[in-house]
Amino acid sequence: MTKKEITIVGAGLVGSLWAVYMAKKGHKVNMYERRPDTRKEGVYGGRSINLALSDRGWKALRGVGLEDEIRKVAIPMYRRVMHSVDGTLTYQPYGKEGQAIYSVSRGGLNQTMMSLAEQHEGVKIHFDQKCTGVDLETATAWFEDDHGKIVEQEADLLFGADGFYSAVRQIMQKTDRFTYSQTYIEHGYKELSIPPAEDGGFRIEKNALHIWPRGGFMLIALPNQDGSFTCTLFMPFEGENSFENLKGDDDVLQFFRSTFPDALAMMPDLIVEWKENPTSSLGIIRCFPWTRNGKVALIGDSSHAIVPFYGQGMNAGFEDCTVLNELFEIYGDDVDTIFRQYELIRKPDADAIAELAMRNFVEMRDLTADPDFLLRKKIERRFADKYPEKWLPLYSMVTFSHIRYHDALAEGNRQDAIMSKIMSIPGIEQKWDSVEVENRLLELVS
Amino acid sequence: MTKKEITIVGAGLVGSLWAVYMAKKGHKVNMYERRPDTRKEGVYGGRSINLALSDRGWKALRGVGLEDEIRKVAIPMYRRVMHSVDGTLTYQPYGKEGQAIYSVSRGGLNQTMMSLAEQHEGVKIHFDQKCTGVDLETATAWFEDDHGKIVEQEADLLFGADGFYSAVRQIMQKTDRFTYSQTYIEHGYKELSIPPAEDGGFRIEKNALHIWPRGGFMLIALPNQDGSFTCTLFMPFEGENSFENLKGDDDVLQFFRSTFPDALAMMPDLIVEWKENPTSSLGIIRCFPWTRNGKVALIGDSSHAIVPFYGQGMNAGFEDCTVLNELFEIYGDDVDTIFRQYELIRKPDADAIAELAMRNFVEMRDLTADPDFLLRKKIERRFADKYPEKWLPLYSMVTFSHIRYHDALAEGNRQDAIMSKIMSIPGIEQKWDSVEVENRLLELVS
Repeated sequence: MTKKEITIVGAGLVGSLWAVYMAKKGHKVNMYERRPDTRKEGVYGGRSINLALSDRGWKALRGVGLEDEIRKVAIPMYRRVMHSVDGTLTYQPYGKEGQAIYSVSRGGLNQTMMSLAEQHEGVKIHFDQKCTGVDLETATAWFEDDHGKIVEQEADLLFGADGFYSAVRQIMQKTDRFTYSQTYIEHGYKELSIPPAEDGGFRIEKNALHIWPRGGFMLIALPNQDGSFTCTLFMPFEGENSFENLKGDDDVLQFFRSTFPDALAMMPDLIVEWKENPTSSLGIIRCFPWTRNGKVALIGDSSHAIVPFYGQGMNAGFEDCTVLNELFEIYGDDVDTIFRQYELIRKPDADAIAELAMRNFVEMRDLTADPDFLLRKKIERRFADKYPEKWLPLYSMVTFSHIRYHDALAEGNRQDAIMSKIMSIPGIEQKWDSVEVENRLLELVS
Repeated sequence: MTKKEITIVGAGLVGSLWAVYMAKKGHKVNMYERRPDTRKEGVYGGRSINLALSDRGWKALRGVGLEDEIRKVAIPMYRRVMHSVDGTLTYQPYGKEGQAIYSVSRGGLNQTMMSLAEQHEGVKIHFDQKCTGVDLETATAWFEDDHGKIVEQEADLLFGADGFYSAVRQIMQKTDRFTYSQTYIEHGYKELSIPPAEDGGFRIEKNALHIWPRGGFMLIALPNQDGSFTCTLFMPFEGENSFENLKGDDDVLQFFRSTFPDALAMMPDLIVEWKENPTSSLGIIRCFPWTRNGKVALIGDSSHAIVPFYGQGMNAGFEDCTVLNELFEIYGDDVDTIFRQYELIRKPDADAIAELAMRNFVEMRDLTADPDFLLRKKIERRFADKYPEKWLPLYSMVTFSHIRYHDALAEGNRQDAIMSKIMSIPGIEQKWDSVEVENRLLELVS
């Protein structure tokens, strides 16, 4: 492939990873980032929003040799730990023995990824540069700094890795027959935290993702390397149990006392954090096409932002890089074909993970507190362990495999129908591990 | 109600009508229109895209005394005339004796409406003014002319009546939790024409909407006052019968010869028009909320653009004015309540007519050529004529009544289920007008 000049708009997680992919092929990469360099300012130094890195993400990192570096800052979480109101704990493993999803700090990971990108020949990150225009025919783009100075950047190809509010997509949105939607769910979220214990250790099980499922809302906690947990409260903006209804300090304390008493006991900074941290919205972006003229392509959230409940947003963006890279390997300089194939392959997968992420929200906040649901998962797990070639649970397909999201969703729907039949067997609570149930499953699967 | 300063962005049909409503209440109205004044340039002087004005539109015009003026330029269309490939004509009345939808030229009507608006004290239209910004908190807006000069317009209230590509909506789109989608159907359209006969008369039935239904595509023709018909070809962009596949003059002629022979014989300028007129796309806009801060509101296409197949786009926009005006009458200066009520009332209606317009596309291009469908409509018509209090056909609810679109859709679905049962009566073709069928209908309706 001939050497190209590449512009990447956005130096977030996906942009930084894609820069490395492009640099490894010998291309020159200019990255433009709207925000300042957080590494200089010490922002995101400690805790921040946590992400769950899983197999699709690891594969994309491995593709350019970044896996080992990131492993150092990631904490494996082997299971869900559900906290009931009375403090009872319930457990649900994510996969087979040894399989885990990995807690990483978004800010910290982003800083590491930017530094790794910059170590590659030909990669340059320009900070404080807001994208003000893109010529979709030529890939030339314009950026404005804090002082209003405009720079023009020519390129052979431009990638819009500029996230939910993508400026590149906003320009594409104005082109004829561009399908686009932004929708928001009724829930918002607020970041909170559980600090390390006084001895520096973890106050609750370290290698787990903690959930306080309460039906219409939930609290989750993911571990950090310093012994703390980053917590996120997901709750409707309006209605009975809602952010709107928690106005004063007393409302907040009373709410936590009655719904999350064990968590409250570990959250000394609750009231301060409640006031300081914003209540943020959760949106979904869908659009098509993702590319224009063999010159401009959207990757990551800019083309398919999803809700965070499957822990797949970053993983899906990283997988865009894997797929795009494979297409570059196959088609070389034929970028028209590469971009066309890319959007045709990835669009159904993006739609599928968007759907799965919404479903997983219901599962996390509601079903993980439901004995029937937990039994169902236990039956699935037992069968999957015994007949791994016949049954790979949906969660494992999404999290621990590279099966296309679209295919995983279809297979998951098939499994759902089968499990509904199994769960309707009279007395299933008693005979869930019987030969009868196993044989019925074998019959239904084939 | 206290006198207010009103800004209306867009001097199209809905903007001009709303300006009159506001002026009649004694408010001062500044309208800003992106395009030049077409009245000066003689553009749209003759033919142009035709619209079908129906009862909702007339009511809104009547509300400010504009009905009589517009009646003068409108041509009633009492029925559909379907043209088969072999030239056979089939007829379907739109409503009861004397009920009609009215063909008007979009350009001509817009010019008339602007002139009528300007005749009202306090209304001023500023042309060649592109909206570059709106402060959603204060209703202050900025406009740029062709020379790059920016004007700032303060106001008490601002209405975005700036259509499908609304600049006001684009600004609202960037606010948190704003739901928005733009989608395009696979069909595009091209304007063509049938000129007047040599004696100045109409070459085909004047008081009708003509359809050449061909399944996946269709041609329609609406009458103009000069004896001509404005024709529109609706066809997919890509695929077997598509714009993409009609490249040369011969392709076009051959296509018309085989699918629209009777129309072709009346279209001497077909090839010239085919090349000169663009192939345009057909999109749907959905969004929510429609208002912000009791200061800014979207009306018409800017908040709910739909496909043109029910002839309700303009009528729905005009009905926005009726509803908003009623709310201003009730709530006076309480604009917060007016705007909130407006969007809550109108959003389900806008969604319903968007859905109905898509369904009517299938009806027009496909079902109007289907004997079963025509029989079904004949049975409905007969029953509706005899029992008008028991059955108002869906088309009549939408076109000749002021029943909310949302309610019309629900009732239409109920009627659909009933008619499916009637159509499955053995030998319905023979006994469609029998007492048996009538009694069965009476039974199902109650």
